[in-house]
Amino acid sequence: MEGRRTGYVNGFHAASNTNGFHGSDTAGKVINCKAAVVWGPGEPFVIEEVQVDPPQKMEVRIKIHFTSICHTDLSAWLGQNESQQAFPRILGHEASGVVESVGEGVEDLKVGDHVVPIFNGECGSCSHCMCEQTNLCVKFRVDPFKSVMTGDGQSRFWIASRDGGERRPVYHFLNVSSFAEYTVVDSACAVRVQPAAPLHKMCLLSCCISTGIGAVWNTANVQEGAKVAIFGLGAVGLAVAEGARLRGASQIIGVDINPEKMLKGKEMGVTDFINPTDCKKPVNEVIKEMTIGGVDFSFECAGNLDVLRDAFTSTHDGWGLTVVLGIHPTPRLLPLHPMELFDGRRIVGCVFGDFKGKSQLPDFVEKYMKGDATYKLNLDGFITHELPFDKINDALKLLQQGKSLRCLLHV
Amino acid sequence: MEGRRTGYVNGFHAASNTNGFHGSDTAGKVINCKAAVVWGPGEPFVIEEVQVDPPQKMEVRIKIHFTSICHTDLSAWLGQNESQQAFPRILGHEASGVVESVGEGVEDLKVGDHVVPIFNGECGSCSHCMCEQTNLCVKFRVDPFKSVMTGDGQSRFWIASRDGGERRPVYHFLNVSSFAEYTVVDSACAVRVQPAAPLHKMCLLSCCISTGIGAVWNTANVQEGAKVAIFGLGAVGLAVAEGARLRGASQIIGVDINPEKMLKGKEMGVTDFINPTDCKKPVNEVIKEMTIGGVDFSFECAGNLDVLRDAFTSTHDGWGLTVVLGIHPTPRLLPLHPMELFDGRRIVGCVFGDFKGKSQLPDFVEKYMKGDATYKLNLDGFITHELPFDKINDALKLLQQGKSLRCLLHV
Repeated sequence: MEGRRTGYVNGFHAASNTNGFHGSDTAGKVINCKAAVVWGPGEPFVIEEVQVDPPQKMEVRIKIHFTSICHTDLSAWLGQNESQQAFPRILGHEASGVVESVGEGVEDLKVGDHVVPIFNGECGSCSHCMCEQTNLCVKFRVDPFKSVMTGDGQSRFWIASRDGGERRPVYHFLNVSSFAEYTVVDSACAVRVQPAAPLHKMCLLSCCISTGIGAVWNTANVQEGAKVAIFGLGAVGLAVAEGARLRGASQIIGVDINPEKMLKGKEMGVTDFINPTDCKKPVNEVIKEMTIGGVDFSFECAGNLDVLRDAFTSTHDGWGLTVVLGIHPTPRLLPLHPMELFDGRRIVGCVFGDFKGKSQLPDFVEKYMKGDATYKLNLDGFITHELPFDKINDALKLLQQGKSLRCLLHV
Repeated sequence: MEGRRTGYVNGFHAASNTNGFHGSDTAGKVINCKAAVVWGPGEPFVIEEVQVDPPQKMEVRIKIHFTSICHTDLSAWLGQNESQQAFPRILGHEASGVVESVGEGVEDLKVGDHVVPIFNGECGSCSHCMCEQTNLCVKFRVDPFKSVMTGDGQSRFWIASRDGGERRPVYHFLNVSSFAEYTVVDSACAVRVQPAAPLHKMCLLSCCISTGIGAVWNTANVQEGAKVAIFGLGAVGLAVAEGARLRGASQIIGVDINPEKMLKGKEMGVTDFINPTDCKKPVNEVIKEMTIGGVDFSFECAGNLDVLRDAFTSTHDGWGLTVVLGIHPTPRLLPLHPMELFDGRRIVGCVFGDFKGKSQLPDFVEKYMKGDATYKLNLDGFITHELPFDKINDALKLLQQGKSLRCLLHV
């Protein structure tokens, strides 16, 4: 049913749809706030004053409390793919915050709700959302080509033109754009979490934790006793390690060229560490010897095709599964020969850990908060640094230099 | 337990291990018989007199009754891959026959048993045979590099040297070498079928039927109502169609550049036929329009990388699965971009329909013979031609010209 843009939908007034919360003073108004804007590929983030439009139909405006930088932000910041050359832009997709106001038609979220934005949304009613086999919503799936809102193809962010002309739009990123005090997202891209859940940890659920844990639990469905190798021990790779540890994997091999990852890895469930630069043999041979034939599952979290091939060839023939999590520049071909598929090794991609965010993450949070044994995640271990929002360029450097897993920005 | 090469194993005399059958007169002796020998890449088959050694430990010697030519024989005949340059050679891997004698230690087969040789064997006791996830036996899996027996690295076939010198070995092929009146295979590569099952049809179970049906039933696990596309309507492709029809697929799209395949395809379950040379758009676009988004499953049975890409891109995003059945010359890369895996499409290889031959095919035959509704296969439809064994070069031409599905050779 088409709603009207009057603020009244199905008999409810959007701004009063708060179930006990007061409607925010700013509801329905443009908000002036700070955002970290990138004006061109690789240019430093500039903290700018931006205008944030009210949420439109089926959208919510969120006051961001915490955000962090992920490698996907990094590649968009560098403009590595053509699709990511939309500037000025507000990047950021890993965050947590509180709903400031909701647009027409939004019924599952209200002002004051604690939320985690998700870059891979879930409308709940399309053919894909109705299908158990995929978490790629037709309308709100992750889309690096997208830089505006789905509903009207417009931006909700505005900034004063640098040449003194009319204000100009600032582009969105990955359905979220969390490097701002306020952002507007489709309600399909905001997951409500219980108020008791600490927002600074919930921020991690927005990307790295869900992606890594879900790759193990949903995509690979790793079982007790399985042997696992993880290529790239960034935050996603270490979330994979956590997921594998919680599933009772017997061997969790971490592979990284950064020797500092060894200690961190062991803290997060990694049982064996390989630094390929120290190896006299190809990594896949080393792993095959360590595991008598290869691992049952390998996870590629590096976004590098040579590493992807290592990950594939490190699995056991007959049944090995490689899960690709890294983002690879295109166009490049998969470094596999067709006949290699006949050895029974398989390879699949994984987006957002194959979680259907809105339907499945609240239950995840509930079990985590209850201390369910199978959800005893070491989330604190992922937050290696904390900085105020205006130090975002320092946070970027920490990530680029491999010094941080996640630097939590207090917005 | 190591047996001895005396003919006595576990208290049974091998040649008397017949449970009511008389031991053959030829048991333990070299047999002189006819075989179709290939002396070099692409050279015509020559019907030659060869000597066939008695079966050694855990081997059986089979009197071949029927055999047929498959495209894999064709590519080996052409010597397309380096690994296949072993000549003189006896090709052939799709056959049926009767056990003439058994070697030491063979307990599950006896003289007189009706058998179907399988190129992808099953020892029943290795790590892979004990694992439900694979049908790739460690010792007897399909291996194009192999040209001798597994046990002693020798050939069982001998031929007079052309230069008048000592007799020389003739190489084996794909664990079977059925283009001969008698062959020796490992007992792991011979499946007993009930005597009532007509041997001329059972020949097809040796390769094309098991491969195609199994790809649908085991690898893809196609369910009722699914949409399927088959690229390449040779015998394997049409066996895929039969398998999909029996599973109740709602749409079975056959793709072939040979217009004669349309009629044959419709007879075998194909509901829609596409000849890519008649299309004004790329095949994947045509299929996406016909199916509203793409098929659930595509089967690549052509051994062509462009076709493989068409097959992959014709599946539905989110959940489409491509099963690769074609044999592709190496080295070539898979024509897929890593990021395409993030659309939820998957691709897997399939060997021998993921059937564990020795454990699963007898049950298949039993259900087929009983007329079980889900096993009502049109096997006769696959036998388009029949010829005496010495017309093998004519059978080869029929296959090369796309005129035959299977030309059954009466040996």
